[in-house]
Amino acid sequence: MKSAVVSIQGVTGSFHHIAAERLFPGASCLERDSFDEVFEDVKSGRAGYGILAIENSIAGSLLYNYDRLARYAIPIVGETYLRIVHNLIAAKGTALSDIREVRSHPMALQQCQAFLKQYPFKLVEKEDTAGEVRKLSEKPENGVAAIASSRSAEIYGMEIIAPGIETDPHNYTRFLMISPHGAPSGASDNGLKSTIHFAFNDGPGTLVKVLNKFAALNINMSKIESRPRVGAPWQYEFFVDLQFDFGTALGKELFHLLREATLFCNLLGTYRSYGTFVP
Amino acid sequence: MKSAVVSIQGVTGSFHHIAAERLFPGASCLERDSFDEVFEDVKSGRAGYGILAIENSIAGSLLYNYDRLARYAIPIVGETYLRIVHNLIAAKGTALSDIREVRSHPMALQQCQAFLKQYPFKLVEKEDTAGEVRKLSEKPENGVAAIASSRSAEIYGMEIIAPGIETDPHNYTRFLMISPHGAPSGASDNGLKSTIHFAFNDGPGTLVKVLNKFAALNINMSKIESRPRVGAPWQYEFFVDLQFDFGTALGKELFHLLREATLFCNLLGTYRSYGTFVP
Repeated sequence: MKSAVVSIQGVTGSFHHIAAERLFPGASCLERDSFDEVFEDVKSGRAGYGILAIENSIAGSLLYNYDRLARYAIPIVGETYLRIVHNLIAAKGTALSDIREVRSHPMALQQCQAFLKQYPFKLVEKEDTAGEVRKLSEKPENGVAAIASSRSAEIYGMEIIAPGIETDPHNYTRFLMISPHGAPSGASDNGLKSTIHFAFNDGPGTLVKVLNKFAALNINMSKIESRPRVGAPWQYEFFVDLQFDFGTALGKELFHLLREATLFCNLLGTYRSYGTFVP
Repeated sequence: MKSAVVSIQGVTGSFHHIAAERLFPGASCLERDSFDEVFEDVKSGRAGYGILAIENSIAGSLLYNYDRLARYAIPIVGETYLRIVHNLIAAKGTALSDIREVRSHPMALQQCQAFLKQYPFKLVEKEDTAGEVRKLSEKPENGVAAIASSRSAEIYGMEIIAPGIETDPHNYTRFLMISPHGAPSGASDNGLKSTIHFAFNDGPGTLVKVLNKFAALNINMSKIESRPRVGAPWQYEFFVDLQFDFGTALGKELFHLLREATLFCNLLGTYRSYGTFVP
């Protein structure tokens, strides 16, 4: 996979970049400002793969990425999990007592509240985590720190002033890999997972009929997410993760039944897990 | 209800305020910057009622408000729906061709994209919709407009330059009313709705067992939302709306069964609808 081009949301050193480094060692990454650009990169062929966060174990789902998966219809070809460790990062030689201002993404600031409220820091919300480390490395500002990954400190030659400052250590992000080219090698062999997307012509009461089809086949549902159906107020679309392979004869039969029971049903991908990375 | 004190997120003229005016004519509103303050107002007794948006028919659920409903355990006592109409608003005498900059909440800017992209406006994201109309009325700026409700133009003596500029007219927001004092009068009599909150000790696969209990009793489920269980990665809590009254003997029996089938199950409220308001 040395020659893979991978599109990520965020800069080098971001959590998306760490996921990309682990999945595609030596790959070149396209740093993008938005998830839409990541999808466009893969759609146009500028990148062979895209990596996108889909859920954090504390903050919940990135709902707009579900909408994008449905809209772009680029297959999910893998998933991976990253333990999110936040660090207070500043220029080398900075002491904790020198810091008066801390910059990061609102989510990172929120996830480090218990640490941050011990100090009289001015907290400044920014678009990015690692991006702020890069900015501070390019244009040093006395007394200013960022919250980001340890990898970003390493890459930009900055110092970790306080490591692991996230309040809740049960902090993981799940990333999906999308590609029209199938999965790269290296996935773990703990069974296949599938994500399907469907809706009904009426309220969500019909949902139970579909879930019963999975239960009857002893298929484990690991996630269910609902999104509004645009143009049909109070009707919903569902995104469901199943520990199931739709490529088998049974899978094809089930998929046929799902299509009959729903307004539409699309398979967003059948894929393996690349495991959990802890920095 | 003339003496009611109602806590809302946003300023006078905001969509929350319009909902409050319709539900509590003549009430005094506490204008708050955050939903947490609304919940604190009701908890402390500073306000008898709180009103909070829970879902928009295009953008989806306000997930953090589900978390707050669970955390504060203040009962839901009613729901209402508001048709969201966005208007381009500026100082009296402003022509559309005078406008060079438009300020509003990112969601409002996004929902008016089709209109906005016809003009070379600079778009500026702000915290608020009606709040920007108020600011412009207090400190006029030539060539600057806001996107907000028609009510805000009326209240702050500003002019609607272009009415109804939202791209998709299927734009409704559902608001919940919370209170420890029960419901005010005036609800429509189209049956009671209940919201329950529950979780399991394992993945969402067990969900179907609970949904089957509703289906067996012919209870319609109008909404299902999942949120992460904090401290238990990839386990979920569910918020489910049912067209059902848990105050009946059958309701009490069902609730007992739900408690046995779940890790926990809480009733967030059984309440009536106050209908849909169209400005």
